[in-house]
Amino acid sequence: MTYCVGIKLDAGLVFLSDSRTNAGVDNISTFRKMIVYERPGDRFMVLLSAGNLSISQSVREILQVEQLKEDPEDKESLTIWNAKSMFDAARVLGNAVRHVYDRDAEALKYTGVEFNVSLIFGGQIRGEGMRLFQVYSAGNFIEATPETPYFQIGEYKYGKPVLDRVITPDTRLDEAAKCALVSMDSTMKSNLSVGPPLDLVVYEANRFETDKIISIDMQNPYYRMLHSSWGQKLREVFDSLDDPVWDDAQTDTPLKTEGGRSKPLKKITRPEERLI
Amino acid sequence: MTYCVGIKLDAGLVFLSDSRTNAGVDNISTFRKMIVYERPGDRFMVLLSAGNLSISQSVREILQVEQLKEDPEDKESLTIWNAKSMFDAARVLGNAVRHVYDRDAEALKYTGVEFNVSLIFGGQIRGEGMRLFQVYSAGNFIEATPETPYFQIGEYKYGKPVLDRVITPDTRLDEAAKCALVSMDSTMKSNLSVGPPLDLVVYEANRFETDKIISIDMQNPYYRMLHSSWGQKLREVFDSLDDPVWDDAQTDTPLKTEGGRSKPLKKITRPEERLI
Repeated sequence: MTYCVGIKLDAGLVFLSDSRTNAGVDNISTFRKMIVYERPGDRFMVLLSAGNLSISQSVREILQVEQLKEDPEDKESLTIWNAKSMFDAARVLGNAVRHVYDRDAEALKYTGVEFNVSLIFGGQIRGEGMRLFQVYSAGNFIEATPETPYFQIGEYKYGKPVLDRVITPDTRLDEAAKCALVSMDSTMKSNLSVGPPLDLVVYEANRFETDKIISIDMQNPYYRMLHSSWGQKLREVFDSLDDPVWDDAQTDTPLKTEGGRSKPLKKITRPEERLI
Repeated sequence: MTYCVGIKLDAGLVFLSDSRTNAGVDNISTFRKMIVYERPGDRFMVLLSAGNLSISQSVREILQVEQLKEDPEDKESLTIWNAKSMFDAARVLGNAVRHVYDRDAEALKYTGVEFNVSLIFGGQIRGEGMRLFQVYSAGNFIEATPETPYFQIGEYKYGKPVLDRVITPDTRLDEAAKCALVSMDSTMKSNLSVGPPLDLVVYEANRFETDKIISIDMQNPYYRMLHSSWGQKLREVFDSLDDPVWDDAQTDTPLKTEGGRSKPLKKITRPEERLI
C-alpha cells in the first residue's frame, strides 16, 4: 500500500509520501514514491505515485524520455522539461500512463491484475502560478482548486479528517507540513502497509527550486515529538469532553430528552413478536 | 453504506448504529440497523447489521423463527430464545445467514450482486458472562477478546483511530458510549452515506435488560455538544504542536538533523538524468 499527499497553498506546495510497498503482508519492501524534477530558476515539479509498482516505475522511467507529438510536423515535441505550463506537463504525464497501458494492460489482465496507478503531480513553471494535479489510470487528470486544495492517493481515509479540519489556501507552509505529517502518522498507526521513511518536500511560491527536502525516519526528533504529543493530547481532549448523562435534569446537554424527535427503537421481547 | 460498532467491556456492552442506506448516491433512505432482543431477567441481545439490506432484513426476519436442528430426533430445536449460551445463539444467527444464502445467493449472482452481509451480535444469557460476536457472510463468526474488545462493520476506517486510542476492557460504560459517538461523528463527517438518526444501547453487566436505549438525531443536545467541542478542540491541539523548524540549531526537535539516517531524495535536474 501507499499513502501520499500533495497540498497547494497560496504560499507554496507541500508533498509527503511514505515508502512501503507490499505484495501481500508477507512481502514488504521499501520503495521511494516521490521524485523531484528541478531546473533552478525555470521549473520545479514533484511526482508522487501509488498503485501497481511496476506500472508507476515504468511511468516514471518513460516520463523522462516521453515526447508528446500532437502534430507529426512539429519539430520539437513536448516533454516535462520544455512544457510551457504545468497543464502541458500533466498531459505529458498522462500520455506516459497511456503508453504503459498500451504496453502492459493486456498482459496484466491475463494474470488477473488490474491496471492500477494513481499519481499526484504538482509544481511551477516560470511564467505561471503553481498548479497541482491528480492523474488517474486512464491518463486523465483533475486540478486542485481553492475549495479542495489537496490530493491524496493510496490509503487516504485515516489521514483525511485532519486535512479537512486544517488545510485552506491561506494555511502557512510549515503548518501544512505539520498537518501532512499528522495525517501520515494517523495512517501509519492504522495501516501497517504504510511505513517509513517519509519523504517531505516544501516548496515556496516563485522560487523554482527548494532546499526543503528531507527524508524522515522514526528517529527524527520532530516526527517523534509530533507522534507522541498528538496521541497524548488527543486522549486529553477526549477525556475533557463530558460523558453522556442519561437523566436530563442534571445537565445542559442531556443525552435523553423529553421530546426526542426520532422514534425510539422497539425491543423484541417474545419469539413470536415481529419487527415494526 | 453503514457504520455500526459494538464494544464489550468488563462493565457491560455498548452498541451504536447509524441508519442511512443507499443504492447509489442518488438513492438515500433511512433504515434502522439495530434490533434489541430482551427477556428481562433471562437474556438480553443486540443485533447490528451492514451490507445488502435485502439480505440483512431477511436474516433478521428468519432469526425470529429460525430453529437450528442438529439432530432430527431432537424434540426441541435451538432458537435465540432458548439457547443456553450466546455462542449457541450466534450459531442460530449464522444458520439464518446460510438459510438466506441458500435462498438468494444464486439469483443475486445472476444480476452481478455479491452476497454481502456482516453482523455484530452481542449480549448476555443468564448462566454465563457477556459475549460479543462478529458474523460474516458465510455464517461463520469470531468473538471479541480483551485484546480486541470491539467490532466495527460497514465504513470502519474513519472511526477506528479513536476506538484504538480509548477502548480497553476497563473503560467505563459512559466513556465508551462517548467514544462510540465520537467515532460515529468522525465517520459521518467524512462519509455522506453514513447518517442519522443514531441508535445507542448501553447494557450493564448481569442486568439482563436495559433502559439505556436512545435514538439520537442531530438536534440531540449531547451529540451537538460532542460534535462541536471535538472539532474545535482537535484544532486547538493541532495548533498547540510546534511547527517544524528546518534549522537544527534553533530547537530541541529539529526536522532536519546533521546525521539523518535515511538517504535523502535525489533531485532530477536534467532530461537525460536517470533515477538511481
